[in-house]
Amino acid sequence: MPSHVRIVEVGPRDGLQNEKTLVSTADKIALIDRLSATGLQSIEATAFVSPKWVPQMADAAEVFAGITRKPGVHYPVLVPNEQGYERARSVGVEEVAVFTAASEAFNRKNINASIEESLERFAPVLARAQADGVKVRGYVSTVLGCPYQGDVPLTDVVRVAKALHGMGCYEVSLGDTIGVGTPAKARAMLQAVAAEVPMGALAIHFHDTYGQALANILACLEEGVAVVDAAVSGAGGCPYAKGASGNVSSEDVVYMLHGLGITTGIDLPALAETGRWLAGILGRESQSKVGKALAAT
Amino acid sequence: MPSHVRIVEVGPRDGLQNEKTLVSTADKIALIDRLSATGLQSIEATAFVSPKWVPQMADAAEVFAGITRKPGVHYPVLVPNEQGYERARSVGVEEVAVFTAASEAFNRKNINASIEESLERFAPVLARAQADGVKVRGYVSTVLGCPYQGDVPLTDVVRVAKALHGMGCYEVSLGDTIGVGTPAKARAMLQAVAAEVPMGALAIHFHDTYGQALANILACLEEGVAVVDAAVSGAGGCPYAKGASGNVSSEDVVYMLHGLGITTGIDLPALAETGRWLAGILGRESQSKVGKALAAT
Repeated sequence: MPSHVRIVEVGPRDGLQNEKTLVSTADKIALIDRLSATGLQSIEATAFVSPKWVPQMADAAEVFAGITRKPGVHYPVLVPNEQGYERARSVGVEEVAVFTAASEAFNRKNINASIEESLERFAPVLARAQADGVKVRGYVSTVLGCPYQGDVPLTDVVRVAKALHGMGCYEVSLGDTIGVGTPAKARAMLQAVAAEVPMGALAIHFHDTYGQALANILACLEEGVAVVDAAVSGAGGCPYAKGASGNVSSEDVVYMLHGLGITTGIDLPALAETGRWLAGILGRESQSKVGKALAAT
Repeated sequence: MPSHVRIVEVGPRDGLQNEKTLVSTADKIALIDRLSATGLQSIEATAFVSPKWVPQMADAAEVFAGITRKPGVHYPVLVPNEQGYERARSVGVEEVAVFTAASEAFNRKNINASIEESLERFAPVLARAQADGVKVRGYVSTVLGCPYQGDVPLTDVVRVAKALHGMGCYEVSLGDTIGVGTPAKARAMLQAVAAEVPMGALAIHFHDTYGQALANILACLEEGVAVVDAAVSGAGGCPYAKGASGNVSSEDVVYMLHGLGITTGIDLPALAETGRWLAGILGRESQSKVGKALAAT
């Protein structure tokens, strides 16, 4: 297992994007600044996507311009295409993320493109990013199952991850978008990808829809992965199962890592407090069990 | 990892005992009969304890007399002493469970006895059970931490587990009562106990207070344990952290086991439906993520 894990905090983007409550620009900025104060090294700040599709992210430029960028902290933002990349760059973004899926059916439904077409769309973004010295993170979603096609062949996961890495993504995040995976499958998936892409360039992204996220993360840590995506307060539900959970909560991941003797650089009580603050803004209970337990004891 | 795991369903006792809503005798009977219909092999039915201390269990005799005992299913009941044992036997109980802790401070607060005294109290129960051909299950609680004394030395866990086994308990269940453990600690605890008590006589009992239960169970399965306690719907909160979770939900455990290719003999959709039915009786949401996800998809 790694001695240090970098948490990529995706609450402000992946989390909020899937919350119904519209969060104010000021609160988004406060959230990101609170998160950077906990010791997090990577915080996905927002997405430069069409407000028509994702109203929650309409204020991407204002949010990014409003945060206090802490030295040493990375603030990637999601960009779906060149226009998004340009908008992001115009407010000083230094790291972007691109998103595709290992499932052909999911890509068609989600971004109206085949896997190949989605990769072609990224090519100019990656070329410009390379010229600009901008780092690019790649997401592969539906790595352990798809809400439309069901099973996703491992060969497709490996092919897409390898393509993103080959196109210049410094890190490829493997996402179980609907949270159906279990530890042996998660481990086998990671092993297959790691045979083609160096483990040091891989991250894991588990949703807790079926409560399996921490067990899956444990199995992947045993394989040597050292970057884990998570969302404070478990922000973001599951768009494919109403009322079910989405992102694994950062607090629960950090609690496990520290218990395993793995450092994260994160102040867990401060992170849990931020999670409860966010739950208050969203008008619901924190989805983090650690957040609840620390508040109660 | 084992190829088959026996789930000991503790919802009707450990779960309900820690729920505020008083459940009717008829609903308790219906719960147990629904559970036995899912394929569960072991269901802890109730506790023959003083109604003064545990009002929720005042109808133990009526509950046990009212259930339809399915051939091949075990229905252990908790007994604190000889009086409890006698009451249980008078309604035909064939398996009992005794309860102590690895923490001296917890035993004093919880049952007003030292560890040694609690073991002495069990001696006549175990002697009578042996004479009657009644099986006895032993619980060791606070194996990874105590709400009163904090850390619990591994040597105390091993000593108490070994004593219970030596006194005639056919199975000793190791409980992380406050859910603070993480996988490496859970694994080390199990390894230490298994050096003195055969693995085939051990069960694990994790609470999900900090969200760690499934990860801990995974680590212990890797050590070879094949009996796991869990409560349908995650029934029972944490008496030491108000608003926090208690027992790991049986549905989430079974989902993981089946995903790992481990058989349980349990019909998961039927179990999840029973969990949602129980949540309705308790007037709250199911604490099982699988229960929620299966209802939503």
